[in-house]
Amino acid sequence: MFTGLSAFPLTPMNEQGIREGEFSGLVERLAKAQVDSIGVLGSTGSYAYLSREERARVTQLAVDSAGDVPVIIGIGALRTRDVLALAEDAQKAGASGVLLAPVSYQKLTDDEVFSHYEAVCCSLSVPLCVYDNPGTTHFEFSDELHGRIAQLPQVRSIKIPPVSTDLNAARERVKRLRALVPEDVTLGISGDVVAATGLIAGCDSWYSVLGGLFPEKALAITRAAQAGDNQTAQRLSSELEPLWVLYREYGGSLRVIATMAEILGNVSSPNLLLPLKTLQGDVRKRVEQVIEQLKLV
Amino acid sequence: MFTGLSAFPLTPMNEQGIREGEFSGLVERLAKAQVDSIGVLGSTGSYAYLSREERARVTQLAVDSAGDVPVIIGIGALRTRDVLALAEDAQKAGASGVLLAPVSYQKLTDDEVFSHYEAVCCSLSVPLCVYDNPGTTHFEFSDELHGRIAQLPQVRSIKIPPVSTDLNAARERVKRLRALVPEDVTLGISGDVVAATGLIAGCDSWYSVLGGLFPEKALAITRAAQAGDNQTAQRLSSELEPLWVLYREYGGSLRVIATMAEILGNVSSPNLLLPLKTLQGDVRKRVEQVIEQLKLV
Repeated sequence: MFTGLSAFPLTPMNEQGIREGEFSGLVERLAKAQVDSIGVLGSTGSYAYLSREERARVTQLAVDSAGDVPVIIGIGALRTRDVLALAEDAQKAGASGVLLAPVSYQKLTDDEVFSHYEAVCCSLSVPLCVYDNPGTTHFEFSDELHGRIAQLPQVRSIKIPPVSTDLNAARERVKRLRALVPEDVTLGISGDVVAATGLIAGCDSWYSVLGGLFPEKALAITRAAQAGDNQTAQRLSSELEPLWVLYREYGGSLRVIATMAEILGNVSSPNLLLPLKTLQGDVRKRVEQVIEQLKLV
Repeated sequence: MFTGLSAFPLTPMNEQGIREGEFSGLVERLAKAQVDSIGVLGSTGSYAYLSREERARVTQLAVDSAGDVPVIIGIGALRTRDVLALAEDAQKAGASGVLLAPVSYQKLTDDEVFSHYEAVCCSLSVPLCVYDNPGTTHFEFSDELHGRIAQLPQVRSIKIPPVSTDLNAARERVKRLRALVPEDVTLGISGDVVAATGLIAGCDSWYSVLGGLFPEKALAITRAAQAGDNQTAQRLSSELEPLWVLYREYGGSLRVIATMAEILGNVSSPNLLLPLKTLQGDVRKRVEQVIEQLKLV
C-alpha cells in the first residue's frame, strides 16, 4: 500500500460544511485513474482544520468512493487522546492505513514525539505512515528518532520532506535513512517539485498533491521512475516547471492546487476554510495561464 | 485592563479533564495578590489543546474565581469560524477582554491574518489583545500589519514577543511599533526573561507566565518599573537568573513553570496534556534546587 503513487485529494469545504458530492467525485477520479493509494485528510485535505465528526464523514465518503484502491487517512492532532480517537474512527470506517504527523503548538521534544507514536501504534491494527512535514508541524525529526519510531509495530512507511534537487545528494539522503529503518518500512517522497528526483534516488513511493488533482500526470512520472526510465521521469517533471514556479511563489502546493480545482470546476469556490483563501486577482490569472499552457485537465 | 501585570495561570488537566478545584485555586491566588488582569487560556493555559466545551468551562471557573480582577480569555483557533464561536462563549461567560493569536497549520499570508482579525473584531463587544507569538503560531507579523490590525475596532493591546536584552535596542523596538499604532492601544511584553527590560523600554504591560504562579515576584518587578525605579526592576529580574537559565535550557517557560507547580503542590501531576510532559528525572531535581535557591513559593 505504501509504494507507488499515493494521491492526496483536497477536501472541498465551505464554512457550512463538506461538499460531499465534490469530494466523492475527486476520489472517484483517482480510483478510475488507478493510483496506488489515496491519501485522504493529508495537509492537502485540510485535516488539521476539521472536527472529529467532519473527519469521520470524509473518511466514510472516501472508503465508499475508492473502489479497490487502498485509502490512507490522516489522523494527526495536537493531543494524543484525540489521535487515538481518530485512529479508531478511521479503522472502523474501513481505512487501509493511517498517516500521522506530530502536529504541535508548543514545540515538542523527541521523547514526547516517540511516546505519542508509541501510544498510537499500540492501539492500531492497520499500518501507519510517519508523516514528517516540518513546514506545518514545526517538528524536525532526527534520523535517529526516525530509526526508533520505525521499529514500532504498525509503522510501515515514512513520508519524508523534499530531498535536494541534486540527485547525488538525494541518493545520499535516502541511503542514510534507509540504513536506519527496517526493510519492510518504505520511504516516500513528498514535495511534488522534487518527486521525480526522490523516486530516482530510491524512494518507494510519492505522496503527491499533484496526483490528487492530476493523477495521470503524476502516474506517468511514477511509472517511468518505477520502470527505471529516469530520463523520462525527469523530463515529464521538468515539463511541469511553470507549475513548480507557482508552488514556489505562492507558499506551496495547497493554494495553487485548490485554485486550479476551482478554475477547472472540480470544486466550488471557495473550497478552503477561512482564514485560508485560494489565489485571487492577477495571481489567479497566472494560474489560469499555466493550466492552459500545460493542458491540465 | 491591558496595563500593568497580566498573570497567565496554567490550566491543570489530565487526560480525563480539567482539575477544576486546582484551576480555581490558581486564579484565586492571583486575585488575592491583586494582579492587574488574569490571562486565562493563554499558551501557558494550554488553550490550543482544549475543546470548545473545556474552554467554556475554564472561562466560567476563571470569571467566578477572579473577584474584581479583569479576566482576559485566549480565543485562538485554526479556523475563523471557531474563533467567532469562542469569542461568543467568552463574552457570554463574562470575560473582560480576549486574546487572539493567529494560530496556523498552513502558513498564513498577511491578507489572511488581517481578514481573520477583521472578522473577529466585527463581532466583538469586549476589547481584544493581538497575541504575537511566532514561536507557537509560526506567523511573523510585520510592523506594517500590526499597524493595520491595531486600527480595527476593539483592538486595545498588542502582546509582543521578547525584545532584545539590550535596553537601547528594546527602546527602539517599542518606539518603532508605538509610532504605528493608535494611542489607546497598549504594548505588552511577553517573555519573562526580558520583561523588566521591556517595561523599562516603554511597554505598558507584562503578559507574564511567571506571574501566573509567582504573582508577588512578578508584581515587584512590575511596580518598580511603573514607579520609574529601573534599577530595582532590573535587579529583581537578575535575581531570578537561575530560573531564566531553566527557561532557556528546557524549551521555554511552560514546562518549567508546570513542573514547579507540581513540585510545590499547586497542581497534581501530570498537569499537561499528552504528548506534552513536565520535566522528570535529573532535570526535575535541578528545578527543585532552583525553587529552594530562589525561595519560590
